[in-house]
Amino acid sequence: MSTLRTPDGGSTPPSAPGGSGERVIESLGESECMRLLGAERVGRLAYNGWEGPTVLPMVYKLHEGSILFHPLQGTFTEQDLRTGIAHADYVVAFEIDQIDPDARGGWAVLVVGSAHHVDTEAERASIIGAGADPWPWPEAETAHLMRIRPTRITGRRSYLATTQVDS
Amino acid sequence: MSTLRTPDGGSTPPSAPGGSGERVIESLGESECMRLLGAERVGRLAYNGWEGPTVLPMVYKLHEGSILFHPLQGTFTEQDLRTGIAHADYVVAFEIDQIDPDARGGWAVLVVGSAHHVDTEAERASIIGAGADPWPWPEAETAHLMRIRPTRITGRRSYLATTQVDS
Repeated sequence: MSTLRTPDGGSTPPSAPGGSGERVIESLGESECMRLLGAERVGRLAYNGWEGPTVLPMVYKLHEGSILFHPLQGTFTEQDLRTGIAHADYVVAFEIDQIDPDARGGWAVLVVGSAHHVDTEAERASIIGAGADPWPWPEAETAHLMRIRPTRITGRRSYLATTQVDS
Repeated sequence: MSTLRTPDGGSTPPSAPGGSGERVIESLGESECMRLLGAERVGRLAYNGWEGPTVLPMVYKLHEGSILFHPLQGTFTEQDLRTGIAHADYVVAFEIDQIDPDARGGWAVLVVGSAHHVDTEAERASIIGAGADPWPWPEAETAHLMRIRPTRITGRRSYLATTQVDS
C-alpha cells in the first residue's frame, strides 16, 4: 500500500521483497536526518496532552533548523501545549518516516525539542517574510504558528540484507 | 508527495486543490476508525520512553479489536514499555493517517490504550494460530509481539469545503 519514497535518493536500502537475509538497522547521521526533514512535508507531532498521549499529523516546513507548523484549529487547542510559564516550552516529539511493509524496509527520523509558540508579530513576520510559511493557504495567514527547536535528532534505516547472487 | 488514499472508499472528502472554501473538521465514528485501522498496515506508536517522548513507525495488524505489532529489535528495547509491575501495562498512543498537503485534506485516527506484552506461549500461539501475525517474515517467528488494547479511539477528517459552481 505505501511505497518507499526516498527524496533525492540516498536512503534506498538494498531491500529485497523476497529476500530472507539478516535485518540491518543503521543509524542515520544528523545531516542525513536534516536532509530528509527538508524533503518531506508531513510529519507527526506527539505530546502528552490533557487527554493523554496524543499524536497528530502536521504539514510542516523546515526553516533555519526548526520545524514550523500550524496546529489545525479544532484538532488541539493551543492550551494543550502551553506550560503556563513564560519562556518555558513544552517538550514534544516530531517524526517522519517512509516504511514499506512489503519490501521489509524503511527509515524514520525522530526529533525531540521544545514546542515554541510564535506569539509575537515580529517573530511571525520574520518567518513569513522569509517565505517559510509552512501552509501557504489563505487561512494560514491568521492561523497560530508553532516552531519546534530540536534538541535531539535521531534517525534509523532498516532493511533486510541479501546475499548477492552472481548471474 | 503523499497522496490521499482511502481504503475501500468512504473517506474521500470533497477537497479542492484550488479551492478557497471554509475548513471543515469532522469527527469519525468508532466504526469508521476501526475500518480504517483494518485497512492500513503502517502506523506510529508514541510513548514516553527513557529518552523522552518517542514516536516509532510500526507495521501492524488489527486483530480482534487490538493493534498487533513486533517492536523492531534495536529501535527500542522491551524495557521501554515495561512498567515493572505485573499485569500493569504502559499507556501508549497509536496513530494512522493519510494527509495530502496539496489537496488540503486528510484524515487521522488516534488510538490510546495499554501496550500489552505477549509473553506467554499460549497467548502468542492463539494469535499466530489465528493467522494474525502482523509481520509474516522469518524473523517475526521469534520476535517479541505486542498488543495495544484500545481504551479510546478517535478520528478526524479535515478538508476545505468549496462552493459548487454550476456549469
